[in-house]
Amino acid sequence: MGRVTERRKVLRIRDGAVSSRPDTLVAEEPLEIRLNGKPLAITMRTPGDDFALAAGFLVSEGVLGGQQDLRNIVYCAGATADGSNTYNVVDVQTAPGVVIPDITLERNVYTTSSCGLCGKASLDAVRTTARWPIADTPAVRVTPELLASLPDRLRAAQRVFDRTGGLHAAALFSEDGELLDVREDVGRHNAVDKLVGRALQNGELPLPRAILLVSGRASFELAQKAVMAGIPVLAAVSAPSSLAVDLAAETGLTLVGFLRGSSMNVYAGEDRIALRAAAAQG
Amino acid sequence: MGRVTERRKVLRIRDGAVSSRPDTLVAEEPLEIRLNGKPLAITMRTPGDDFALAAGFLVSEGVLGGQQDLRNIVYCAGATADGSNTYNVVDVQTAPGVVIPDITLERNVYTTSSCGLCGKASLDAVRTTARWPIADTPAVRVTPELLASLPDRLRAAQRVFDRTGGLHAAALFSEDGELLDVREDVGRHNAVDKLVGRALQNGELPLPRAILLVSGRASFELAQKAVMAGIPVLAAVSAPSSLAVDLAAETGLTLVGFLRGSSMNVYAGEDRIALRAAAAQG
Repeated sequence: MGRVTERRKVLRIRDGAVSSRPDTLVAEEPLEIRLNGKPLAITMRTPGDDFALAAGFLVSEGVLGGQQDLRNIVYCAGATADGSNTYNVVDVQTAPGVVIPDITLERNVYTTSSCGLCGKASLDAVRTTARWPIADTPAVRVTPELLASLPDRLRAAQRVFDRTGGLHAAALFSEDGELLDVREDVGRHNAVDKLVGRALQNGELPLPRAILLVSGRASFELAQKAVMAGIPVLAAVSAPSSLAVDLAAETGLTLVGFLRGSSMNVYAGEDRIALRAAAAQG
Repeated sequence: MGRVTERRKVLRIRDGAVSSRPDTLVAEEPLEIRLNGKPLAITMRTPGDDFALAAGFLVSEGVLGGQQDLRNIVYCAGATADGSNTYNVVDVQTAPGVVIPDITLERNVYTTSSCGLCGKASLDAVRTTARWPIADTPAVRVTPELLASLPDRLRAAQRVFDRTGGLHAAALFSEDGELLDVREDVGRHNAVDKLVGRALQNGELPLPRAILLVSGRASFELAQKAVMAGIPVLAAVSAPSSLAVDLAAETGLTLVGFLRGSSMNVYAGEDRIALRAAAAQG
C-alpha cells in the first residue's frame, strides 16, 4: 500500500561497461474501483492517493459532482485467501439520493444506440454529461508568458520522476500561475483523476479558474476529464489528438499543446489567451 | 476510416509572435472490438490497421493463438441512424472449435476469487495463459550494440510522428536487427496490438526470434503483450514499471529499458544479452 517506488536489481550497460546495481522503479499495481459494492473498473496505477483516484474517476464518469455526493470511500478487506487487505480494491459509497448514471465498465466509452460508435457520439456524451459547462465559466485570461512558466514549475514539483523517469505528472495551477496541487502516476489519466478527486474531497469542485497541465500528450480522455471537472484551460507539453481538439472546440475548453520554452500552440478556446495586440501577426 | 492524421487550424505562439496556420494532428477515434458479435472492449485508437489491432488485442487476451483460430474480421455496418458504416466497430469471428476463455470487459484485468486483486495475481494469470512460454524459446542472443542501433531505425521508419509529434510507435526487429514491421498509434498498446495482429494474420505467431521495441515506457500491459505473442525480448526507450519487471522476471522475458545512445538497463532475462566478457565489471 502506498509504495510509490520499488527497488530492483538491474544490469547497467554504459558504452560497453557493464555493472550491476539496484535501480528505483515506479510502482505499478492494479486498482479495482467499486461503486456501492459493485465492481466498476480496474486501472493499473501507482499506489497512493487511491481514494482520490477513485473519486476523481467517478467525477470523470459523471457519477460524483461534489463532496456532498460522497458518503464514504473504503479499502475492501478480506478479499484474499488469508483475509488480508491488498489495498488494491476500493469501494466508493455514494450519499443517499445520488442517482447513478448508466455507465459502462469500460473507460471513456460513450455509445448511443442511435449513432453506433463514433467520435461525434463521444463528444456529445461529454457535452451532455458535463455539470459545469466550460463556456459558462468566469472570464479567466492567461498570458502566454504565464503558460510558458508552468512546465518548469511542474518539473520542480515532481518528486518521483527524477528517481524513476517513469511517471506521468499532472498539476493544477491558479490563473496567476500558483501551483495548487501536483500528482504523479504510471498512468497519465490516473494522475489527473487524483488531482480532481482530491479537489472533490476538499469541496473545491468545480475548478472554473484553474489551469490543468499534463506532462505528456493531450488525448480525448484528458480533455474529457478537464471538462467534467469544470476546468477551463488544459495545457500539454506534447501533442493533442484530433478528438481532444474537437472536444475542446465543442465545449469551449482552452487547449494548449506543445508548451515548450516560450512556444506553444493554441488549438481551441483562444479567447482565454491574453495576447499582446502588437504581437499579433498573420 | 483510415484517417491517420487530421488538419485543424491552430494559433501558434513563438516568442511572443502569434500566427494562425493549419496543423496536422494525430487522429483519435473509438474502436469497439466485438468477439463473435458480442461487444468486448472499446479502445481509443488511431484509425487504420483496425483488423490487425483487433486480432492482436485478442492474442493478448488469450483468445487467438494463430491464423487457424480466425474465421473472419469484418466492420459492422448499419449501426448508425442513417445506416452508414462508421468503421469504428469490428467483429472478430473465431473458427469453429475455438474455446473462448472467460475474459472480462476491462483490459489487463485478472481477478481471481481466491486472491482478491493484486500484482501477483496479474503475473500468475499471464504465466498460466501464455501459449508459448518465453523460457522455452530458442537461445536468441543480442549484443548491446545491436540493441543500441534500434531506436534510430524505429525513428527513421516512423512516418506520422514527424508530422504530428503525437504518436507512439512499436516495431518488431529480427535478432539480426532487421526491421520487420512498425506501427504507430495514439495509444502505445494499440501500436503493439497492430504488430502482433498483423503477425497473426500472416501466420507468423509466435515470434520466438523477434525483438519488440517501444518508443515510450514499458508498462505491465506491454510486457504482457510481448509474453502472449511469444516475443523473447522487449526493449523500451524509457522506464519500465515494477510490475513489468516482475512479469519479465517470472516469465523469462528479456526486458531492456532506457535504451538511449549506447546506454541501456537490463531488468530481466540478462542471458539473452551477449556481453563481451572483458567488459564485465562488478
